Amino acid sequence: MKDMDDDATAYEWSDFYPNEWKLDQKLLVHYSRRLQKVEMWPYFDVPHYIFSAIAVRDDLGPSALQFARQHPFSCWLSTMMISFAGTLLANFLLGEAPIEPFRNHFDVLAATAIWYLVFYSPFDIFYRVSTFFPIKLVLSVLKEAQRAYKVSHGVAHACRVYPESYLVQAMVGISKGAGGGIVKTVEQLVRGVWIPHKHEILHPSFTTKACVIAATVFTVERNSNLITAPHDLIYLAVVGFFVYFKLSALVLHVKDPLAPLENIFCSIFMGGIWEAFSRAVETTKEEVNSSQKHKNDDNFLTVSNKQKNGTKKETKKAK
Amino acid sequence: MKDMDDDATAYEWSDFYPNEWKLDQKLLVHYSRRLQKVEMWPYFDVPHYIFSAIAVRDDLGPSALQFARQHPFSCWLSTMMISFAGTLLANFLLGEAPIEPFRNHFDVLAATAIWYLVFYSPFDIFYRVSTFFPIKLVLSVLKEAQRAYKVSHGVAHACRVYPESYLVQAMVGISKGAGGGIVKTVEQLVRGVWIPHKHEILHPSFTTKACVIAATVFTVERNSNLITAPHDLIYLAVVGFFVYFKLSALVLHVKDPLAPLENIFCSIFMGGIWEAFSRAVETTKEEVNSSQKHKNDDNFLTVSNKQKNGTKKETKKAK
Amino acid sequence: MKDMDDDATAYEWSDFYPNEWKLDQKLLVHYSRRLQKVEMWPYFDVPHYIFSAIAVRDDLGPSALQFARQHPFSCWLSTMMISFAGTLLANFLLGEAPIEPFRNHFDVLAATAIWYLVFYSPFDIFYRVSTFFPIKLVLSVLKEAQRAYKVSHGVAHACRVYPESYLVQAMVGISKGAGGGIVKTVEQLVRGVWIPHKHEILHPSFTTKACVIAATVFTVERNSNLITAPHDLIYLAVVGFFVYFKLSALVLHVKDPLAPLENIFCSIFMGGIWEAFSRAVETTKEEVNSSQKHKNDDNFLTVSNKQKNGTKKETKKAK
Repeated sequence: MKDMDDDATAYEWSDFYPNEWKLDQKLLVHYSRRLQKVEMWPYFDVPHYIFSAIAVRDDLGPSALQFARQHPFSCWLSTMMISFAGTLLANFLLGEAPIEPFRNHFDVLAATAIWYLVFYSPFDIFYRVSTFFPIKLVLSVLKEAQRAYKVSHGVAHACRVYPESYLVQAMVGISKGAGGGIVKTVEQLVRGVWIPHKHEILHPSFTTKACVIAATVFTVERNSNLITAPHDLIYLAVVGFFVYFKLSALVLHVKDPLAPLENIFCSIFMGGIWEAFSRAVETTKEEVNSSQKHKNDDNFLTVSNKQKNGTKKETKKAK
Repeated sequence: MKDMDDDATAYEWSDFYPNEWKLDQKLLVHYSRRLQKVEMWPYFDVPHYIFSAIAVRDDLGPSALQFARQHPFSCWLSTMMISFAGTLLANFLLGEAPIEPFRNHFDVLAATAIWYLVFYSPFDIFYRVSTFFPIKLVLSVLKEAQRAYKVSHGVAHACRVYPESYLVQAMVGISKGAGGGIVKTVEQLVRGVWIPHKHEILHPSFTTKACVIAATVFTVERNSNLITAPHDLIYLAVVGFFVYFKLSALVLHVKDPLAPLENIFCSIFMGGIWEAFSRAVETTKEEVNSSQKHKNDDNFLTVSNKQKNGTKKETKKAK
Repeated sequence: MKDMDDDATAYEWSDFYPNEWKLDQKLLVHYSRRLQKVEMWPYFDVPHYIFSAIAVRDDLGPSALQFARQHPFSCWLSTMMISFAGTLLANFLLGEAPIEPFRNHFDVLAATAIWYLVFYSPFDIFYRVSTFFPIKLVLSVLKEAQRAYKVSHGVAHACRVYPESYLVQAMVGISKGAGGGIVKTVEQLVRGVWIPHKHEILHPSFTTKACVIAATVFTVERNSNLITAPHDLIYLAVVGFFVYFKLSALVLHVKDPLAPLENIFCSIFMGGIWEAFSRAVETTKEEVNSSQKHKNDDNFLTVSNKQKNGTKKETKKAK
């Protein structure tokens, strides 16, 4: 609790909150710091590497093990690309060396060990245990916590390189957090698979959208005074946001909580309103036309009736 | 007219021209400077962004608006990639950050606004007005003027980084001017479309070829004494070259004025001459063979005739 | 022989070898230095450019000359990409300018001249001479000697940029030596061909594997004391290794001398051992089951026999 007292002077903004809240907030800040002090390895890196390898294996389908036996190098490179996708993509965008993730031997060795266990463990025990629901749940929570860390650090890194460019900062944050989805197209190519009509940019998953929100929040927090809460609180909120929606996806099978909002937004701003308006105009026009036609028809009818009557009269007269 | 007098001393080379020309050239230089002083935004950037968005929309075909409604992010990223294709490609080739075009918030916002108008404007009015022939003509002229600016600045930029490498300078100039065509393959991938057998490198359009010529001219001008005319005049000439051929393409539907030259060049240097030569040799051989065969046939005929005659004589005798 | 004496003091390690060997080793070192002093151009570069152009031409198949006539630019760019593939790939991975190979005008002009000769020479004489077996053999030896040079220099370059990262050094060495195979996928795209399910990473050729071995040897030599032989000797050994296997591939049609080793490695470490184990367990289980079933069947049989006997007895009694 010592470092909390040290920073006490920094919390002038906390005077705006009622006294009863203070403890809670301090506690939250405290927990957030504790969370940020937890070392990446092994608590967060291991779940990330496990899910990366599992993602590659699941993408390979039922012939995954056969592929891994026949093309171990391609399989390994694929898994590495997904494991370090965030850094790969961010470095590519920033014009830095895409090979950099391979500099840290420890990370590569750890990811390689987990790749080996996922694909070649005896009796497939590692894969079965990792995909066992309760364990998967715990690992998912840890992986999502790491995602928040990555987005935050991506924004911070871009902020140092391009201090004034908020868009670049957000994009690098998104790349770091959701790089796997975007790198996947190239990663599939490494495995000899090419699916151009199905990628994250065309059909963004909720994870990518959540990273967009998180990166935006971190960028706004860094570059403006719009968000007055301390970084630790925001970090905790983002972690909670990621974890909450991951759990709801896993437990309640909520696929995309943003879909309704998006649909409304699209139907209003992406031409929907004008389309509705023009449809209304057309309908009105049609109605006007049809009523005029109706009138004309009525007129025609009355005329023809008159004619009929006239002819009747004439026929009567003729009789 | 003030700044013309200031630079008057620099025109020693103009002493070689007859006096009657002097005014014309000075006027041209004056106009060229004026043109180069016109700010990019909004006079040149707006047409460029409009044509970039229209290019994406036309490439999407009849389902463009439906696609834009369903995948707004993919559509936006596509349009941005085409709008900033030159910088994207040149930065990639030079090992600089491909994300750099997104640094300038104003440019991105302007391009985004125009993308929005092209795809979602009420009653599609913006697209209809922009593709209305006279307006399209004016916008095309402005866009081509900007292309000359881009090629010139691309060459100048590469000249600073690689002062001695003329090929690199020309390539960067071409990338800046005709980047859209080359980036298009990746841009289509962003929209889920993959057409590997149809791209600018395989089937270069006239615009790309014109950029090759312009970049070569600017590179030669910068690195040698072959071109003695001042940069302003050359710049104006390149602008005129781009505008002239764009107008002839739009008004007279001249697709590729270089095609005949290319065909002649290819038929002479790309093996055509040797093929013609070997064909001639073969034909000669065949003729020689056939004449020999003819002779043989004649011999054979005379022989057979003799035999016939012989048999006739014999039959006569037999009778 | 003068420079051999100068370095004599450096060979303390050579004291461990018997005296009769000394001369041989000194001679080898001497030859290796001589080899390394031979200038790249034209002895090694020309064969490399020839084989690059021939590789593109062979990949184009029977319609190569027709393609080269119709799309000379695409054909030229393809050949340049294969000719400078090592530098292209290594620069991309290290975040340096991929355009750099085009800086050296002399190299580009030389490669262009050879490309022209391979594709458009009169009566196809250049291609026919180059693919004439004895000449091909000599050129192959020279090209393989150059490959060793490239791998060595790639490792040395990466060693300067990332001194502590052995994996990166080896990867850059491999890229320099076997870049052509990996760049090929993009190079085919330039020619309008897209074959995603067939590339070097998925089906590595022996050349790529040999580069992996050579790069590993050079990296280990640079960063550890495991290899005590001088660099010159190792260089000569790697050259010999490359040349030996190239000759055995050309003369004896040995496709992949590493395949048996790989198969053993894969069958042991890539899940094969566990699969064999689990298959053994399953077989044992089945046997146990079947023997139990057999027993049960026996029991059943005895029971049914007893019953039969019983019924027989009953029927006897009934009689």
